[in-house]
Amino acid sequence: MALVGFGTVGRSVARILCDRSDERLRLTHICNRNVEKKKQPWIPDDVIWTDDFQTVLNSDTKIVIELIGGLHPAEDFVRGALIAGKSVVTANKQLIARHGLDLLQLAGKNGCRLEFGASVAGGVPVLPALRTGLCGDRLHGIAGILNGTCNYILSRIETARIPFSEALEEAQARGYAEADASEDLDGGDARAKLAILALAGLQTRVSPESIRARTIRAVDAVDFDYAAELGCTIRQISRADLKDSTLLADVGPSLVLTSSPFGRVQKNLNLVLTSGKYGGDMAFLGAGAGGDPTAVAVVSDLLFVAENFSRNALSGSARAHSPQTFLQPQISCDFETPWYLRFLVRDRPGIIARLAEILSAHELNIDAVLQKPGFDKDALPFVITLESCRDSQLHPALEKMSALDFCIKPCLCLPILR
Amino acid sequence: MALVGFGTVGRSVARILCDRSDERLRLTHICNRNVEKKKQPWIPDDVIWTDDFQTVLNSDTKIVIELIGGLHPAEDFVRGALIAGKSVVTANKQLIARHGLDLLQLAGKNGCRLEFGASVAGGVPVLPALRTGLCGDRLHGIAGILNGTCNYILSRIETARIPFSEALEEAQARGYAEADASEDLDGGDARAKLAILALAGLQTRVSPESIRARTIRAVDAVDFDYAAELGCTIRQISRADLKDSTLLADVGPSLVLTSSPFGRVQKNLNLVLTSGKYGGDMAFLGAGAGGDPTAVAVVSDLLFVAENFSRNALSGSARAHSPQTFLQPQISCDFETPWYLRFLVRDRPGIIARLAEILSAHELNIDAVLQKPGFDKDALPFVITLESCRDSQLHPALEKMSALDFCIKPCLCLPILR
Repeated sequence: MALVGFGTVGRSVARILCDRSDERLRLTHICNRNVEKKKQPWIPDDVIWTDDFQTVLNSDTKIVIELIGGLHPAEDFVRGALIAGKSVVTANKQLIARHGLDLLQLAGKNGCRLEFGASVAGGVPVLPALRTGLCGDRLHGIAGILNGTCNYILSRIETARIPFSEALEEAQARGYAEADASEDLDGGDARAKLAILALAGLQTRVSPESIRARTIRAVDAVDFDYAAELGCTIRQISRADLKDSTLLADVGPSLVLTSSPFGRVQKNLNLVLTSGKYGGDMAFLGAGAGGDPTAVAVVSDLLFVAENFSRNALSGSARAHSPQTFLQPQISCDFETPWYLRFLVRDRPGIIARLAEILSAHELNIDAVLQKPGFDKDALPFVITLESCRDSQLHPALEKMSALDFCIKPCLCLPILR
Repeated sequence: MALVGFGTVGRSVARILCDRSDERLRLTHICNRNVEKKKQPWIPDDVIWTDDFQTVLNSDTKIVIELIGGLHPAEDFVRGALIAGKSVVTANKQLIARHGLDLLQLAGKNGCRLEFGASVAGGVPVLPALRTGLCGDRLHGIAGILNGTCNYILSRIETARIPFSEALEEAQARGYAEADASEDLDGGDARAKLAILALAGLQTRVSPESIRARTIRAVDAVDFDYAAELGCTIRQISRADLKDSTLLADVGPSLVLTSSPFGRVQKNLNLVLTSGKYGGDMAFLGAGAGGDPTAVAVVSDLLFVAENFSRNALSGSARAHSPQTFLQPQISCDFETPWYLRFLVRDRPGIIARLAEILSAHELNIDAVLQKPGFDKDALPFVITLESCRDSQLHPALEKMSALDFCIKPCLCLPILR
């Protein structure tokens, strides 16, 4: 097998393969740019180091491990390997979220396998469980904390009540967030993972861009104070519910009960809940990132491919991945939930009355108004919670309220998950 | 495929198979004693009902689903099916705990498969995850709440502070406990499951009888009061730690932090934690029993077998299960932990001094003495907690203390898990 991409995960994979010294999992090539600088003394001498993927393609290695990430040149490499009849194991969420089904079909057509167990939730074996122990169920819902960076930042604000910007800097200093963390903070990373979970667990073909992603940048320490009054905390939740031929999907900060499984997930852990017609709810918790946990998922996939490496076995699984079993649903973010609206206003008489009037005109019911003392009147944060209503019902009222002259910022609107 | 055993789980399996109407999973036979009484109108007409397993053996059905449970006649049926080259999917924990490895070898020899994903934790896909997503790790520890009956009873005593006997009656009335619940209460059920997890996750061959099982019958409401003072609650915990060539294993009531994953498991749910060298800790939570969740695990195994149903594929997996990869470890229950000792005494002066003297003579350090007010002097429960020491170090002191004339009952001794 050939390892393409010798970064953090790649090195962990190589290390585990060397530790195991399993004849089925023999490393033949390591391919990386500037490969000379990457060489490690603990890699066996007979492994070929190369910076040319063509060397891998032309070799008789049977499995390609793609760990370079991103779409280019990873997509070309993976397609090239599959067309050459080589099975591929990858941790590339962007590639699988966008082209997973096509690539599965390409693998089936060429009598080889494509496995991507490491592409969601790192070492937490959710994707393998969907493929095996849960495949006998009919799942209708998946929800998760899928981005460790967001969870680290939000749980830090929760415990230390520091401003968002400070929590982000801390995460960057500790290596939990990149210099440009937009993909994480604005939900791009999580929605790619949600698209993969929807593919593997709900048999729905969803492009990640069709899933609404809300940023966590607007969440601040005061929101945790108000959330606590409601028995809640705030997490970035990714969720998908299949109802008939519609997939309700959303990624973004949400209020969750402090006592719920989501509320208890600290630091950079990942949690995934699945809901099935027969088996009910299942929860999976563990390290969602990091070299070694992600490498476990890669090596597990390698063992699976190595053990099922015959054309006869493949015809079966190619059938399992056959395109006609996948739905192409309507995508919507029109969940029906209670809502948390946090305003930031220049205080003056009549604000609540004006907001209540707009809400009432849109037939939206106020559940509670929360206003903590001690804030500056020129930038006063307060909260209105609404009884359950659909996103689409709330949206026009939100626009009107945010345009009011006393609002310093657009209203922060978060779903309350129960 | 032939369904043998048409009880609660068997009916759920048949129902899911009929709902799916998947050509790969076509039911051909249903075999049960007194089969005439079992017939259901929703089963397709072409399914053959029989009370003679020989009819199944002689048919050309390729997969036998064994759901009768217990060792006899299940063992003969499973062996017969495997020898006839039929793959077997079973939920039979006693059979797999005792003969799992033999039967896997028998399956390998006959070019067919044996799957038992439903034998532990019902619908929670722990065994499938061990086989797939975690197989790339090197696990060294498994711990779980594996018996729903015990967890129901203990969490009921916790919330309602009712006596053990009352909680047991309630569990029986609600169908969570059988009339003779000894297998559950005394740990026989959980240690069979632990032996299976040790086989599948730690690659160790352990007979269930070699694992110490402690009963939950001696735990009472007062223990939850004292545990709460320590920030703890009480759960039946099954745990196995592999250290070199020794397997530390124990099943029984244990103090766990109320805020820990174990402490939060309510009702009849199951939770399994795995600890790996590379991937760290993972948690799996869900419905551990019940017809439908267990049936999901069975149907998932059926799909796996049906998809990998070729001799080529099998040679790979037979290799994966080959006997030389399994350890036959020393079994020990000599964990090193802090301890909770609850005494029930006829009060008189000098009791603590006498106990402290014995503990000191055995070089055991007292961490705390807890005595709540308001109890009858003739049957006074109080608690001593000990700093971390090994089970074998504690045992002689326990015997001496329980023999003292002021002790009404033997001291209840529970490990405190941190």
